[in-house]
Amino acid sequence: MPSSATPNPRPAAKDVGPCLCVLYGGTGDLARRKVLPALYRLHAQGAAGTCYVLGCSKGGDLDDASYREVAVEALANAGIARNDAGRWVEARLFYHPARGSEPSDFETLAARIAEIEARHQLPGNRVFYLALPPAAFGPTAGGLAAAGLARGPGWSRIVVEKPFGRDLASARALNATLHQGWKEPQIYRIDHYLGKETVQNLLVFRFANAMFESIWNREHVARVEITVAEELGVERRAAYYEQAGALRDIVQNHLTQLLSLVAMEAPVTIAADAIRAEKVKALRSIRSIDPARVVWGQYGAGKLDGKVVPAYRTETGVARDSNTETFIAIRVDVDSWRWQGVPFVLRAGKRMPGRMTEIALTFRAPPVSLFGRFDACRPQSDALVIRLQPDEGFALYFEVKKPGSEFSLARQPLHFMYSEAFGPLPEAYETLLLDIFEGDQTLFVHADEVEESWRLYTPLLEAPHAVEPYPAGTWGPAAADRLVADGVPARRGA
Amino acid sequence: MPSSATPNPRPAAKDVGPCLCVLYGGTGDLARRKVLPALYRLHAQGAAGTCYVLGCSKGGDLDDASYREVAVEALANAGIARNDAGRWVEARLFYHPARGSEPSDFETLAARIAEIEARHQLPGNRVFYLALPPAAFGPTAGGLAAAGLARGPGWSRIVVEKPFGRDLASARALNATLHQGWKEPQIYRIDHYLGKETVQNLLVFRFANAMFESIWNREHVARVEITVAEELGVERRAAYYEQAGALRDIVQNHLTQLLSLVAMEAPVTIAADAIRAEKVKALRSIRSIDPARVVWGQYGAGKLDGKVVPAYRTETGVARDSNTETFIAIRVDVDSWRWQGVPFVLRAGKRMPGRMTEIALTFRAPPVSLFGRFDACRPQSDALVIRLQPDEGFALYFEVKKPGSEFSLARQPLHFMYSEAFGPLPEAYETLLLDIFEGDQTLFVHADEVEESWRLYTPLLEAPHAVEPYPAGTWGPAAADRLVADGVPARRGA
Repeated sequence: MPSSATPNPRPAAKDVGPCLCVLYGGTGDLARRKVLPALYRLHAQGAAGTCYVLGCSKGGDLDDASYREVAVEALANAGIARNDAGRWVEARLFYHPARGSEPSDFETLAARIAEIEARHQLPGNRVFYLALPPAAFGPTAGGLAAAGLARGPGWSRIVVEKPFGRDLASARALNATLHQGWKEPQIYRIDHYLGKETVQNLLVFRFANAMFESIWNREHVARVEITVAEELGVERRAAYYEQAGALRDIVQNHLTQLLSLVAMEAPVTIAADAIRAEKVKALRSIRSIDPARVVWGQYGAGKLDGKVVPAYRTETGVARDSNTETFIAIRVDVDSWRWQGVPFVLRAGKRMPGRMTEIALTFRAPPVSLFGRFDACRPQSDALVIRLQPDEGFALYFEVKKPGSEFSLARQPLHFMYSEAFGPLPEAYETLLLDIFEGDQTLFVHADEVEESWRLYTPLLEAPHAVEPYPAGTWGPAAADRLVADGVPARRGA
Repeated sequence: MPSSATPNPRPAAKDVGPCLCVLYGGTGDLARRKVLPALYRLHAQGAAGTCYVLGCSKGGDLDDASYREVAVEALANAGIARNDAGRWVEARLFYHPARGSEPSDFETLAARIAEIEARHQLPGNRVFYLALPPAAFGPTAGGLAAAGLARGPGWSRIVVEKPFGRDLASARALNATLHQGWKEPQIYRIDHYLGKETVQNLLVFRFANAMFESIWNREHVARVEITVAEELGVERRAAYYEQAGALRDIVQNHLTQLLSLVAMEAPVTIAADAIRAEKVKALRSIRSIDPARVVWGQYGAGKLDGKVVPAYRTETGVARDSNTETFIAIRVDVDSWRWQGVPFVLRAGKRMPGRMTEIALTFRAPPVSLFGRFDACRPQSDALVIRLQPDEGFALYFEVKKPGSEFSLARQPLHFMYSEAFGPLPEAYETLLLDIFEGDQTLFVHADEVEESWRLYTPLLEAPHAVEPYPAGTWGPAAADRLVADGVPARRGA
């Protein structure tokens, strides 16, 4: 959706007192493209109560006035009228130079916070949003706590963006650092895939529709495929991506979150604790992944949308002998009573023929091919495809008879799109920020989830593995299709 | 669909040798509106092999030439170009005056048939289509058999239109008469509701989609409602309708056919015998209907589409104290392993607010109202509504989350229409005639089905009952809604 579209009006927020949002990385890409526009829109909708914003950055030559100019520019780029943006920044936006990680730096910040809160009679509710590189998470979180900022006069919450560690050991270390100064209920680990209403939509889809929940198990489901496909290549992110690869960039966080939402049991309530407990249980029931059932791929040159695109190894900033995977497919076995024996296949890739994030459940075929006996017309399996991107919704594929006197079957889809039914959906960051202000951790990743996820994938990262080349503009190495029982992934069969 | 629309091309018919179709009632309404246009279209599509038609009627002053004029007029009214119609009638259409039911009348007919077959070198395959009033079924079928016409040199088939009896005794008597001269595999009892691809669509829907078939039972279905609603009143049919009523006109035949297709077990094959055997089994598993669970209604004056319409008892040809039901709702219990305890409600009515034929399966609600605990937002039950008229297709009603930070559910439908996916469907009579030529009895009603159906309803007809008035333009007496467990029929809740 274009960012200038009017989203659905939000209901009034519950119990959101006035607060101060301290935005580290306040001049960075994420702050300018996502966080500041989301903060402005929540303000414009009257949803976020009275929220003041204190941008912080290392670039030391800004002040309130010049930072406000930066913000107005960012908001204008997000489709917000300069007049409206100008009024908001004048009233609500401040700047503080966060020069380093010395105790004195955090004491200066604490003083500035106290000064703003006093001037605007704020009760001391604070969000510390770390839109920072991962190396800065630990020192910043620790410094804030040491300066007493984790125990405000009101509530204090800290927001961390991905990546959260790069293996089990580093994730554990980061959790330990965070936990020194902050309690888990104060920590909001963002996975922006979860901000797209996805969690609640999936929960409602599963648990408000007995029709679907009653076939959501090994009796009825033949396989589950979860796919994040990008058309983009590495673009300008080689420095990061060479160190990450598809497993760290997509699978460990986004795909694993979706996996746990599909595989989890019904929670006792829809409170965050109950849901996160079930997600962790689902992850714990996953069998150690067999490295022989993992396909690592790397795109070569190819064609996409009729344009020739270069091989990964020839992209700017990529090593000529890089072994970084731009594609990965993983066969996962969930050894729960619900899912034992049902293959789950996780897939993530760059330079695919299309951009989409989908969860596909393929149901078992009819036990008897009644119509096949008659004239060799066999039904395909029904499938439910839940789409998160580009248009959130789902499709149900089923068989109907083609009109005419012969028995001939045709696979037909029924499509549902949230935006068609309800208009544009709220931006992920609006949803996430509002939840942070309201203290709802449902959409945020618990420390246990992070560690369980890394427990699964770290052995794969540590074992030697080679990447198979695939042409850009294809669905990855053919070997990946063989992870699906019958070699035909749901989506391409659809 | 307008009758001039081009239906899907038919595949070549199988094993349809040249034949002669003897059309009794050849100048009547059914012949002119349905049978002759269907015969022409099958010819034009090359689907019916070489078929000659011999129209018969009691009006004695027609001959081949003047009957052909009648036929061209009828075909033109059905949207067929006069030139095309003219060529067809000249080549294929003949007339014979069927003056009475004396043996000599049938011998004259036999001679005429022999003469046409000899002239056109036909192998003696014959269809006798009785588009006649019910009183003529027995004498005509008997006379044809007595004249040796049930044992042609090729195959001989006889087609009977509804009504097939008016209670169990009369239906048994008619079957006995037919069976004196004809074997059951020669007898084609038409229920034109079944010609609309409905049988095959339902079979495919159920047995080619494991997803649906696995929840097609008492574990998952809360109730089944089958409804035939008409906007029309009695119109010019009072002479017939006063003697029939909704139970005989709609329930005993159409609704009971649909009921047996929904309730039946999977057949061993999709051959006609296997399917009809399962339908009969389903009917035999129905418990004797409790007269206290039957609501008889009769429309009073009311408003429909903004126009005032008169009460049934004031319509032309209706007795002022008529007790004929124009509405009936019946609670049916299918005591099979699959359906025990699931209420089936059959409903038929005239002067309803809309015209539709629908089968609605309402699924059980989720056992736990997960989202209701949170903010009293309870999911409704999912429902599958299979529509036969006006647009054949189905709709699936399910719950989604409304976008926004509050948990609020919305019921959404997914619609599928065959005509949207495949273009105009073939006319029922084309389908039925082609099946008769091909000798496929799947869509025709077996003697056992007729008798089982009358066995169910005859006690209701024989017991005293009063009709409850309901205003035209409403869904019938309120008492009918109480036959549904929670008082909210699926369709109106949708």
